[in-house]
Amino acid sequence: MADTTETLEHRLSRIHLALENEQLADVDAVIADLEPAEIALLLESLPPAARVQLWQRVPTEVDGEVLLHVHDEVRSTLLDDMDHEEIVAAAAALDTTDLAEIFEDLPQQVAEDMLRSMDALQRTRLEETLSFEEDSAGRLMRMDTIAVRADVSLETVRRFLRWKESVPDNTHLLMVVDRDGRFVGALSLARLVSHDPEMAVADLMDREVDSIRVDMKSRDVATLFQTHDLVSAPVVDETGLLLGRIVIDDIVDVIREDSDQALMNMAGLDEEEDLFAPVLPSAKRRAVWLGINLLTAFLAAWVIGRFEDALDKIVALAVLMPIVASMGGIAGSQTLTLAIRGLALGQISRTNSSWLLRKEIGIAALNGLLWSLVVALLAVVWFGNLAIGAIIAAALVINMLAAGVAGIVIPLMLKRAGIDPALSGSVILTTVTDVVGFMAFLGLATFFLL
Amino acid sequence: MADTTETLEHRLSRIHLALENEQLADVDAVIADLEPAEIALLLESLPPAARVQLWQRVPTEVDGEVLLHVHDEVRSTLLDDMDHEEIVAAAAALDTTDLAEIFEDLPQQVAEDMLRSMDALQRTRLEETLSFEEDSAGRLMRMDTIAVRADVSLETVRRFLRWKESVPDNTHLLMVVDRDGRFVGALSLARLVSHDPEMAVADLMDREVDSIRVDMKSRDVATLFQTHDLVSAPVVDETGLLLGRIVIDDIVDVIREDSDQALMNMAGLDEEEDLFAPVLPSAKRRAVWLGINLLTAFLAAWVIGRFEDALDKIVALAVLMPIVASMGGIAGSQTLTLAIRGLALGQISRTNSSWLLRKEIGIAALNGLLWSLVVALLAVVWFGNLAIGAIIAAALVINMLAAGVAGIVIPLMLKRAGIDPALSGSVILTTVTDVVGFMAFLGLATFFLL
Repeated sequence: MADTTETLEHRLSRIHLALENEQLADVDAVIADLEPAEIALLLESLPPAARVQLWQRVPTEVDGEVLLHVHDEVRSTLLDDMDHEEIVAAAAALDTTDLAEIFEDLPQQVAEDMLRSMDALQRTRLEETLSFEEDSAGRLMRMDTIAVRADVSLETVRRFLRWKESVPDNTHLLMVVDRDGRFVGALSLARLVSHDPEMAVADLMDREVDSIRVDMKSRDVATLFQTHDLVSAPVVDETGLLLGRIVIDDIVDVIREDSDQALMNMAGLDEEEDLFAPVLPSAKRRAVWLGINLLTAFLAAWVIGRFEDALDKIVALAVLMPIVASMGGIAGSQTLTLAIRGLALGQISRTNSSWLLRKEIGIAALNGLLWSLVVALLAVVWFGNLAIGAIIAAALVINMLAAGVAGIVIPLMLKRAGIDPALSGSVILTTVTDVVGFMAFLGLATFFLL
Repeated sequence: MADTTETLEHRLSRIHLALENEQLADVDAVIADLEPAEIALLLESLPPAARVQLWQRVPTEVDGEVLLHVHDEVRSTLLDDMDHEEIVAAAAALDTTDLAEIFEDLPQQVAEDMLRSMDALQRTRLEETLSFEEDSAGRLMRMDTIAVRADVSLETVRRFLRWKESVPDNTHLLMVVDRDGRFVGALSLARLVSHDPEMAVADLMDREVDSIRVDMKSRDVATLFQTHDLVSAPVVDETGLLLGRIVIDDIVDVIREDSDQALMNMAGLDEEEDLFAPVLPSAKRRAVWLGINLLTAFLAAWVIGRFEDALDKIVALAVLMPIVASMGGIAGSQTLTLAIRGLALGQISRTNSSWLLRKEIGIAALNGLLWSLVVALLAVVWFGNLAIGAIIAAALVINMLAAGVAGIVIPLMLKRAGIDPALSGSVILTTVTDVVGFMAFLGLATFFLL
């Protein structure tokens, strides 16, 4: 029985220690017990130098699978460390679907050599897979489907499977096709084994099985698997021709990457980012995001600059103004996060967005009133000035209302424009809450106090 | 063949329209084609009034499954709308594992009635499931395992399955146990059907199958399924006794909830939050988060207040100070997000955190220098004052370095203290970048300019 109790953290410590002390036999012992996906996780958890050391110890026969499981950025650091022959050997060990996933990352010379070394069938399959759009069912599909005809008996199917000797990994459904290769239904292995061998496939097969169009978006395929509790499903073309099957283990990756993406994009990061990337390229990538934010910070500063007069005369304004901007930013980011998740799950549409907007305005009004009272009280106590308390209270309510509206409207507009709301939503929102916050507070002060 | 092409958004529009026009037959037609999980998604996407209307149209026999698939908060709104008998009927339709998942949400009277109406076996199973910790393998486990002995022939197994007539949903592995019920290996249906019936189970079974300890954390179970590409796995107690099995469709939910949680918690939201919750309870929940943030905003204001003198004399300081705080906040939240994801994936441990810290300091130094030059230049052009440019540049570098360090150290410390870094990390980080930013900028200005 495999040992499933050792955590990644424990393995990491062992590997680190072994690499530091150059006890390579220990390193080999750790990785010998691991699945390629676990080796991939370990590699991703190591700084560059240690990563290269470990990578050199990984047995050649699992190199391909490991490359498949690491994030894009880590993959390119690993490929950089391999010579031509090693890459060809690693890639050759993958099946068509897996190879297609990393094919575009391979050095051009390697890709060309691989295509040359393939037989005609392999090449056709690879080219066909690559011809599907990147985030579509076609790319997730495996072609090792077992297809049977509806009019044969279970006994015939069993003889056929026995003759094949091995059934592909994770085969749970046999696909039933007509004479033209069109999908007509599926027969689960569970039914096949639990029924009388004299029965015909047609009597037992499930005709209501969900089939997936080859051009369906990966994200929609993932939703279908989740809502229908699928383990595998047939993939068909627009005429119903059976092309292959999608199995849940590939869908699990789609689900994880999808949710990862929202989290990372909200901070202006790429979900393929390598945690242990070298300083220079990381700094470059993040510089862009900081630059964009600097623009919005200067916009806010420019707004403040319009009220130099007020700031010059009443120093309390400078002290209190960040409170108004910050509370708006926090309230807005709560609404924005809810909206981004709702959009990702497909739960927000034109029909319910106005209800949602009213709800967020209601919440903003209530919390605006509550906290503006608290802030006003504290400001009056601090500066002994009733008018300042009234003004900050009014500005806070205004900014929180603006934040509630912006938190719903911005992601909806971005989505409609085909822009990922998680990526640019928070920058735009902060701009709104900063500008509105400073303008309301300093504007009211200028009007009433000068 | 089921129609898998209609999107949730399209269905939502149809339901909305039908509910508005009281065309209940249309509503029924839409939901008749849907799986319980899809009805759950639709219900979650509707405002309260429409949700109640739709819920009343959902056929009683799927009520239980739908309740299982909605988030906790939505579940309680749906339960509020059902009478005693309806709840009992809905819950009675669930198997033990599913019932355990919602059992604690049921009204006490219903729970008691259900326990009374169960037979001894059902009650024991339910109590056993509830005795496992909430986020452990025991709660995910199904007890409908098919177990066979190693010394029988495949033919005997087939006869046994045929005698049982139906094999439980999603059975892919037959579990092999010894005479004491201890797990010794597994036989996949694929192997069972593709081999000679005369062979013995012992010759074909896989003894290396990963078995899961009943007290393993759900999150670790999910990692195991992902890294080992599992579809189902046996669950055993500490003596190796076979207790049940875990199937991937329940794991998919764990994976999705886990990643959802980080996203929602970073904004101070609960992942069980209902997008369409009424205003008052939503406002109450969010008020806490706003209150905590108000404390940090006042702390920042207090820091600014220490420098009233400088602000009073040089108004440019008030104009520029939010830039320093904001750039630190953005840089810090990038580091924090990377660290939170790394911790969630188990990729950060004591052994590599110092490397990570050095990397983030390096990035902060490079970007700090780059953007401080830009900011200094703009400040000098704007205010015609070289000293202010130098001071804001220095303050920016200091704050971005602090942000880089805080972005790594804060989540690590929170994790060690057993606190979710996603939940409180961002508040603490903002406090650091605000305080350090204002202090560095206004402090340096006071020292050099007054």
